Amino acid sequence: MGKDRLEAFSDGVIAVIITIMVLEMRVPHGGDLAALQSALPAFLSYVLSFVYIGIYWNNHHHMLHATRHVNGAVLWANLHLLFWLSLVPFATAWMGENHFAATPVSVYGFALLMPGFAYTMLQRKLVALEGPDSLLAKAVGEDTKGKLSLLLYVAAIPLAFLSPWISGALYVLVALMWLVPDRRIESRITNQ
Amino acid sequence: MGKDRLEAFSDGVIAVIITIMVLEMRVPHGGDLAALQSALPAFLSYVLSFVYIGIYWNNHHHMLHATRHVNGAVLWANLHLLFWLSLVPFATAWMGENHFAATPVSVYGFALLMPGFAYTMLQRKLVALEGPDSLLAKAVGEDTKGKLSLLLYVAAIPLAFLSPWISGALYVLVALMWLVPDRRIESRITNQ
Amino acid sequence: MGKDRLEAFSDGVIAVIITIMVLEMRVPHGGDLAALQSALPAFLSYVLSFVYIGIYWNNHHHMLHATRHVNGAVLWANLHLLFWLSLVPFATAWMGENHFAATPVSVYGFALLMPGFAYTMLQRKLVALEGPDSLLAKAVGEDTKGKLSLLLYVAAIPLAFLSPWISGALYVLVALMWLVPDRRIESRITNQ
Amino acid sequence: MGKDRLEAFSDGVIAVIITIMVLEMRVPHGGDLAALQSALPAFLSYVLSFVYIGIYWNNHHHMLHATRHVNGAVLWANLHLLFWLSLVPFATAWMGENHFAATPVSVYGFALLMPGFAYTMLQRKLVALEGPDSLLAKAVGEDTKGKLSLLLYVAAIPLAFLSPWISGALYVLVALMWLVPDRRIESRITNQ
Repeated sequence: MGKDRLEAFSDGVIAVIITIMVLEMRVPHGGDLAALQSALPAFLSYVLSFVYIGIYWNNHHHMLHATRHVNGAVLWANLHLLFWLSLVPFATAWMGENHFAATPVSVYGFALLMPGFAYTMLQRKLVALEGPDSLLAKAVGEDTKGKLSLLLYVAAIPLAFLSPWISGALYVLVALMWLVPDRRIESRITNQ
Repeated sequence: MGKDRLEAFSDGVIAVIITIMVLEMRVPHGGDLAALQSALPAFLSYVLSFVYIGIYWNNHHHMLHATRHVNGAVLWANLHLLFWLSLVPFATAWMGENHFAATPVSVYGFALLMPGFAYTMLQRKLVALEGPDSLLAKAVGEDTKGKLSLLLYVAAIPLAFLSPWISGALYVLVALMWLVPDRRIESRITNQ
Repeated sequence: MGKDRLEAFSDGVIAVIITIMVLEMRVPHGGDLAALQSALPAFLSYVLSFVYIGIYWNNHHHMLHATRHVNGAVLWANLHLLFWLSLVPFATAWMGENHFAATPVSVYGFALLMPGFAYTMLQRKLVALEGPDSLLAKAVGEDTKGKLSLLLYVAAIPLAFLSPWISGALYVLVALMWLVPDRRIESRITNQ
Repeated sequence: MGKDRLEAFSDGVIAVIITIMVLEMRVPHGGDLAALQSALPAFLSYVLSFVYIGIYWNNHHHMLHATRHVNGAVLWANLHLLFWLSLVPFATAWMGENHFAATPVSVYGFALLMPGFAYTMLQRKLVALEGPDSLLAKAVGEDTKGKLSLLLYVAAIPLAFLSPWISGALYVLVALMWLVPDRRIESRITNQ
């Protein structure tokens, strides 16, 4: 089974997710800078989520580039990932509208944790399909970065009730950790 | 005539449908868990519809994978399917906002029945085009699962007025029935 | 210059246009059939516009299928068409919300006339590029159906003030006229 | 690494951006021409932004057409461009709703400046990757038009507080300057 349409559909869904988030950023009613400033928390939430969705797209791109086969189980694992990604705009808007209050910041961590899990599951299915000696299996390796991210999300969820800023810092940290595309795969492809 | 652009356009429309549903899930105004809880019925409706749209995309993917030709009639049968799918977000939001009241749950059944019919029609047109000995014709076979689904939707529409939960259970049942991609086609492709 | 990305981008824009129209159809507040009935004018407008956008996609598909080259002018003529198509959801929602009042029905005619013009312009540019003996030139021919459509839109715009139903009937008539994909091109391709 | 999926994803995002702008154009409540007229500033903002996004898509299309390789840094430079483009609908709606007041018109200039910068950065990364003798490097050349555009945006931002119409005129001027697709690249491709 071809992977082309899986890529195309994922691109479509991710493209819509990344752009509809901007629709949740309500246009302020006044016409002065103070009105614009009221949109700042929503804007910062948007930036963070845009970066996260961008990271997912980038890594998804690299992962499927290194993949040769997909099957029905992969299609569903991919839809599962898209499902959790589709909830990111909701969590983003809720966090922005409530100016980084504890509960929405904690829930945002959950909204990042779930696509993290779903991505790991998709990755495992692909590695299993490609085999342990495949390019993908070698590129993924121990997936330390992936595991660490999940750990940090899990930590950020309760820590938001101590201080939302700790969780916010953790979300930014994980994003920075991933901001570079998955060079492991890229370098291996280049080295071949 | 090529089927590439038909697939691409369908992917685009389905990608938008599956993601705009999340826009209908209004972001709650308060910042606590009680506010989030008020979004629960909308969330559950969203999950169900996401799974349904995912099933349609998956089966559409498999069906067109097994198809070699399309013609003008197929383009229209496909648009007809997309039309009914495009109404699913509306029915989903109405059901969620009204906390699974009888009428919206019944109308939701209608909103599932119509794409079911449209899919069957599209499938018939494709089978007719491919011929009775084609891979697709053999894979579709009697289409028992398709017919049973239509029957269950038809039953769920009036049953919602007895109890919306019966209809809800039927919708979940049909979804579970289809959650596996159309292995008939997949296995036949693999066996070739 | 390749036509692939032009097709892909047009598919993307048209897919979004056809699906965001459903977002303009506000979910009714009550949970009974009377509430649903209040959405009927919006629904009827949606059906009509969905069919129109579907017709454009279909004909665009056929026209570009018969095209071998595109250039910068074609890219802009195509964007011009997409611009007017992107206004159809606005006109649709306005007509639906005002329950087919004279002015919105008239403006809707204008919203159909403009993409009609833009399509004709795009078609001319493509025919000029392909040459008078090309498959496309022969398939388009005199373009009687296209000219007649423009004429009927022009008639419907003032007639809405006599009775919106006359204009509505004309819009349905034009849609029916085009509901069949452009068989001229299809049959010529098949005959080759 | 292939550029196909980069193009496809960009097409998807730009297609959504260009069409969701129309969602920000609120459907007027009344059913007469006066109500429609109240949507005029929003409409004019929409036209301007549609043309700008169209220009970006067109130039992006030409630039990537002349590109053979992409790498991880290009993916991120491209996402950076898409990020700033995704804010154009927000700035457009704010300018339209406030009937071209000074602050929103100035902020709109910023919303045009940033994708301008991001495009220049993406272009540099691509030229560096392709090499100084590449088709792309020659086509881009000194990029006088690009630099002039950035200068005009920078001028328009403060000038809006003198008169929004000066800035508006500058935005229209830059758009006209670019309305022709990047013929430098196109002609060089043709000449090869």
